[in-house]
Order: sequence, then C-alpha cells, then structure tokens
Amino acid sequence: MNDIIEQDPELTVIDSLHEALAQNDHELARSVVAELHPSEIADVIESLPSRARDNVWHLINPAQEGDVLSHLQDSVRSEFLEQIPPDKLADATKNLDADDVADILQDLPDALANNVLHAMDEQNLQRLASVLTYPEDTAGGLMNIDVISVRADVSLEAVARYMRLLADIPPKTDNLMVVDRDNHYLGVLPLTKLLVKAPETTVDTWMEEEPCLPTNMPKAEVAKIFEQRDLVSAAVIDDEGRLLGRITIDDVVDVIQAAAEQAVRSMAGLGEDDMFSPVLVTTKRRAIWLGINLMTAFLAAWVIGQFEDTIRELVALAVLMPVVAGMGGIAGSQTLTIAIRGIALGQIVKANIKPLLKKELTVSIFNGMLWSCVVAGIVIVWFDNPFLGLIIGIAIIINLIIAAFAGAIIPLALRRYGIDPAIAGGVILTTVTDVVGFMSFLGLATIFLVA
Amino acid sequence: MNDIIEQDPELTVIDSLHEALAQNDHELARSVVAELHPSEIADVIESLPSRARDNVWHLINPAQEGDVLSHLQDSVRSEFLEQIPPDKLADATKNLDADDVADILQDLPDALANNVLHAMDEQNLQRLASVLTYPEDTAGGLMNIDVISVRADVSLEAVARYMRLLADIPPKTDNLMVVDRDNHYLGVLPLTKLLVKAPETTVDTWMEEEPCLPTNMPKAEVAKIFEQRDLVSAAVIDDEGRLLGRITIDDVVDVIQAAAEQAVRSMAGLGEDDMFSPVLVTTKRRAIWLGINLMTAFLAAWVIGQFEDTIRELVALAVLMPVVAGMGGIAGSQTLTIAIRGIALGQIVKANIKPLLKKELTVSIFNGMLWSCVVAGIVIVWFDNPFLGLIIGIAIIINLIIAAFAGAIIPLALRRYGIDPAIAGGVILTTVTDVVGFMSFLGLATIFLVA
Repeated sequence: MNDIIEQDPELTVIDSLHEALAQNDHELARSVVAELHPSEIADVIESLPSRARDNVWHLINPAQEGDVLSHLQDSVRSEFLEQIPPDKLADATKNLDADDVADILQDLPDALANNVLHAMDEQNLQRLASVLTYPEDTAGGLMNIDVISVRADVSLEAVARYMRLLADIPPKTDNLMVVDRDNHYLGVLPLTKLLVKAPETTVDTWMEEEPCLPTNMPKAEVAKIFEQRDLVSAAVIDDEGRLLGRITIDDVVDVIQAAAEQAVRSMAGLGEDDMFSPVLVTTKRRAIWLGINLMTAFLAAWVIGQFEDTIRELVALAVLMPVVAGMGGIAGSQTLTIAIRGIALGQIVKANIKPLLKKELTVSIFNGMLWSCVVAGIVIVWFDNPFLGLIIGIAIIINLIIAAFAGAIIPLALRRYGIDPAIAGGVILTTVTDVVGFMSFLGLATIFLVA
Repeated sequence: MNDIIEQDPELTVIDSLHEALAQNDHELARSVVAELHPSEIADVIESLPSRARDNVWHLINPAQEGDVLSHLQDSVRSEFLEQIPPDKLADATKNLDADDVADILQDLPDALANNVLHAMDEQNLQRLASVLTYPEDTAGGLMNIDVISVRADVSLEAVARYMRLLADIPPKTDNLMVVDRDNHYLGVLPLTKLLVKAPETTVDTWMEEEPCLPTNMPKAEVAKIFEQRDLVSAAVIDDEGRLLGRITIDDVVDVIQAAAEQAVRSMAGLGEDDMFSPVLVTTKRRAIWLGINLMTAFLAAWVIGQFEDTIRELVALAVLMPVVAGMGGIAGSQTLTIAIRGIALGQIVKANIKPLLKKELTVSIFNGMLWSCVVAGIVIVWFDNPFLGLIIGIAIIINLIIAAFAGAIIPLALRRYGIDPAIAGGVILTTVTDVVGFMSFLGLATIFLVA
C-alpha cells in the first residue's frame, strides 16, 4: 500500500516545484514557475493544498496574474481574490477578455467588485458593462465585444485597408461580422476570402451565413451549436438582431469541460468541491449528501423491520437480501445513466420515450431471467432450500423490472419539475430499488416460506 | 406516471419527423430532413430506434451522406456502413477530412474497407494513407494533411500571391505553418499578420511560437494542450520535427466530448451502448456488469452468513446493517470521484497524494462523528437499546474511515496496473465498504452484545 503512495512513477513539474518549496529554494521554484504557461500555473495551483497554493501565487510574474486567475476554477480563485488590492486587480485584469473579467468580478463581494471597477479606466469599464448585464450562464455572459464588423456594400480592398488601421486584431478572429447601416447582423466574411478574392469585389459577394446567438440563449445550447457547426466564433445579437459581440471557441471549450465535470460530480453529490477545498467546507457539503442518503437508508431499514419475525425464523433471508437490493441498484443505475445522458444531449423527446422504455424493460427482463437462474442455483446449493432459490429468483426479476422502469421515468419526472436528474436521480433510484428489493424478497418469503 | 410519458412539453423536430414517418408522409419527412444540418440529422438518427433510423437514412440528400456519417457515433454508424455499396461510400466520403474518413474505415470489416479504398481516386488515397498509419487515439490519427506551409524567408506579399493561387483554403485555417527548406516545423504565421503587416516584410518577422504535437501524443494530451493554450489549430510533426499535418479544434472538441461521455458511462458499466443499440447487444454488455457486481454481492452475503447466529439472536442487526454499509458506500464514492477526476486531469502527482489522503481522512472522521451520533440517537430511540446505538455508531466511523482510504487508494492502485479506475473503481470500492460495513457492525455486535 505504502508502495503506491511513495513510489508513484510520474515525477512531474508539480513534484519538482513541491520539492523546491519544501527546501525553501525560492529561486529554483520561481524559475520553474517562470517556464510555465499561465494555464499550467493554474493547474499546478489547483493540485496543491491551500498553504502551498499561496506560496506558488507569490512566485508568479505580476504580468501573468490576471491570466492565471482567469484559468483557475471558481472555488480556488476566490481564495486569492481577497488578498489582492483592488487597484492591482484592476491592473491584472486589464488585458483579459471582458467575459473572463466579468467571471472574476462575479466571485467578489459587491463592495470589493465596486472598488475594482472604480480602479479601471474608461475603456475597460465600457467593455465590461456590456457583459455584466447578462447572466453568467447565457450567450450574453460568454460574449466579448472585441468584434470587427464591416458593411455589406464595401469592397474587400476597403476592408483590408480598414484592418490595417486597427492597432490589433482580436485573437480567434476567423470571420468579420457583416452588418447593415443600423448594425443589424447579416452574416460573416471569412478572413480567408479577404485574402484570396479580388480586392474590387464587395463584401456581400463572399458573405456566408452562420448561426447568430441571442443574448439569452443558455450556454449549453451555445456549446451544442458550436459543436454541431464546427464554429470558431459566432455573433451575439440583441432582440432587434443588432450585433453586440461574439463568442469564441475557447470559451465554449471551457463550457463543455465544466458541464462534463459537473455531470460526474453531481452524481456523487460533490458540488463545486475541488481537491483541496478547506476541510470544513468539504465536510459540510458532503455531510448534506450523506444525510440525504441516510434518510433513504432508514426507509429501507424500516421496510426490513416489518419482516423481523420472518427473518428470525429464516436468517438466510438476512444473508441474501442485500443481493436482491444490490442487483436492482446496479441495473437501475445503468438505465438511469442512459436516460440522464439522453436528456442532457437533448435526444429524449416525446417520440422516443415509449420505445426507450420498451427497450429498457426488455433488456431488464432478459437479464432478470438470466441472473435470477444463476442466483437461484447458487442459493439452492448453498442453503439446500429449493423454495428459497425460487423466491429469490422471482424477487430479482421483479426488482430488475421495477429498476428499469424507475431508471427511465425518474429523470423524466425530475426534469418535469425543474430538478437536475443528475443530482437527485441516483438517490431516488436507490430508494426505489432498496425498498422494492427488500419488500419483494422478504414479502414473498413471509407468504410462502414461513408458516 | 402516464402523464410524464404522454405529455412531455418539448415538441421538437424529431417529433414532427416521427409523426411524418408514422403517417407515411415521405414528402413531409424529406422536407423536414432537408432543412437540417448534417450534424442535426446525425443527432436525430441517434435518438431513434433502429427501424426508424433506416427510414431517416433514406431521406438524406446523397450529397450529405458522408457528412452525416462523420457526425454519427461509432456504434450507430456501423449500422449503415454495411448497407452502402463501396463505390458509393468512396464517393460519399470524398469531401470529408482525412481523419474522419479514417475513422469511418476503421469501423468497416477489412475486406469492405479495402473495396472502399480501391474505389477512391489517387488524391484521396494519398490523403488517407498518411492518417491510417497512426492509431486512432493519437495526434497522428486526429491529424489532417490539409495544411498550408510557407518558408520563413519569403515576403508576406509572396505568401499572399501563393494563397490566391490555391483553389481553396482549408476551413479552420487561422495560421499558416512556417517551415525550413527540409520541411522542419519552425512556427506559425497568423493569417491576421498577413492581412495587416507590410507586404515587403518577411514571414520570420511575424512568426510566432506555438506548441507542435508529435504523432504519438495521446489524444487526451492533445486536448489538454488545445484547452490550455486556447488553440484553433496546431501542427503535427514526425520524429525529425518535419511538418506532417495539423489538428483542428473541431476534432479536439469531439475528443473532449467523447471523453466526458465515457467518464459517465464507464461508471455505470455501460461501454459504448447508445440509447437504441439492439436489445441483445445491450443485454449482453449489461449482463457482464451485473455478473461482476453479483460476485461482490455474494461476497458480502458470505460475510453476513458468518454471523447468522448473532442475527438470529438480535434481528435488529439485520434491519440496520444496510445503513452501515450504505453510508460507507456513499462516503467512499465521493472520495473515489475526486480521486478519479484528479487522475484524469493529471492533477494527482507524487507530491500531493499524502495531503490528499490526509484531507479525505479528516473529512471522513468529521462526518463519521457527526452521522454516527445521529444514527446512534435514532437507533437508541427506535430499538430502546443504548448498546446497539453505541455499536452502530462505532461501526459507521470505522466504515467511513476505511471508505475514504479505499476511495483514494483504489484508483491510484488501478492506474498503477494500467486498469481504468473509472470502470473498476466503483465495484471494488463497494466490495470494500460492504464487507467492512457488515463485518464491523456484526462483528462488534457478536463480541459485545450477544452472550
């Protein structure tokens, strides 16, 4: 066991940094940090316990502080934000995208956020104001206003001249946005067209249609459109179709990653915990989850309690009852996972709920028949009691069928009532499979085995 | 219940398509399909049962077949591939990226794949050959050879002239790759520089450094670099540093999505199942998972069996034992999830294993103390037996500590032996928490409660 802890073969940059910090060799540590990309520094910080995080933070080149902040996950970032004086923070975030700055400011207490805003110059304030209006989880909150727009009726040559006048072209500019006189979005002009097409032709000749996103579109939908259409950037428009800004693929990748993270975490009731959140914060978050699960455990215990007399007469029932409940739990969670992912991907609609239910029930009947025979066989040999074998077989089939039904219906019902199926689905399913498992097995035994 | 199945409020394009197919209105169905993007058609097909999938497939404009194929997930795609004659398939894939075609060919039986290759023209064959050499899950397998390279010493004007001569510039071209005389990769020239910088300056003046990827880099690492550096495209090089091709963000997004999908699926033992895989295929895959879990359930049953006499004397033990095992399972799976994600993100290294273990153990001791008091209180009231309360409390603390330890160590040990912790971790953990839970509770009861 110690072997696994002590001699892990991967000696990474984090390890050498840790070593340097342990030996108080700040020069070496600083040089290790200096060679890293801001996103890598953020990764390193996230993988360290709280105290070590502070040490690394102080080694960062001040010019990179803003970049590192923007790459940190929210819960880790807030640790540092309160240590940085507002004017330094305003400075550090000067070169960040407006959506990243907005993200950071939303983590600050209001008073502090105001101080930072006051320390910003006019231009940055304006950039920010447009983004801060929209909720973080919508297209508006993801957008940046660093968008280059051109008119449809001008020549490519004029566009090229205009671009040369711009001090800097924003990163991830693959398309220029084409607008009319009133800034209504019309389409895009790919940069490549600008390069290869005749300079005297006009923008509208080469304009292409691309999806544009309303400010209130949920970020999950934004991600889906980027994925489906293989976009690098897309325009964001207001209610009247006027161009407000654009969303770029790097922010969408972050959305996709965060959603994937959340899907896994919420199934274990972990919330926003990171690896080294403070112990008390973690304890509290997990305690809630344990408490919820404890209630379902006591419900199952109460069900078992109804059959105390039966168990006293045939203790083999107590030995075997977790098998019945467990099989239902496993089978049900397979159906549940399929249903939750189907909902998340928007692939479960009215037309296919019935076929899906039919398929899941058929699979569970097949597997119920297969494994109930196996379990019955083992039980008959183990306890030399054919009736016990028959009863556990029937109980397993019943529990697997109910499990498939519950696994498919629970997430649909939860979605109906606006509850995230990924969080609540597993607990409710386990309650159902435990209760049904214990009740069917012990109930059948009470009726048929015990006089 | 029926309410949930019947009246789901979201009436989508899939529903209208389903309606049209049900009424045999092929004209309407065809017009619905015609309005969709190939990736949306792929989504629709994936959300339908097998028979309906065939119907939709025949409604697709032949010019879009290749595109739709490339957007389908592997298991669904293989359903169609064998229906399409090789020459038609060669034709359908003509306009796809080489990595997508390679992906499709790898799903075909060898003989069929050879037929498709024979039906391809010279140019496509050559494009493909370079990609098919590399495993699907490496940078080489993700790469396309549609890359524009320029020399470092030429002027921007010459580059612009060269680009105008090219028939088409590949999509997602944000950078041109800069190479030396022997095609060694040097850096990138952003298209934007080409647009705004003085035509007489040379490429090397504006060349920027960007990470380049060796062909054997695992795709997970490729995704990480794209994410960290916010890349749109990156060069792929051979052992000698020569430019071979490039990887674009759209393919990386697919990699990220697939990895996220897999993380969720493997925890439920689902493999590559899609929502409407054939019933027998699904049954078989899930049967294996149920069988593995059954073994651990019987191991737990065997542990309980060792205490039959104790249970006969105090049936309350049978009533309460699932509570002890369940609490351990929930707490352990929280630690397990944190550890598995940490490993997947490369954030668990030698330096932080011990602090992580310490944190998880501390949290579990705190939560163990909290919830063992609650459970003990309930048990004392319920069964009017203070000793039973004391014993269940101690058993829960023991199980929670072991659960935290197991949840952190199991995935590290599995990684050590090259086993995916996401697949095997949950089963092993449950075995540990069940066995320890039953053994500590029933064992303590045997020693202290039963004469």
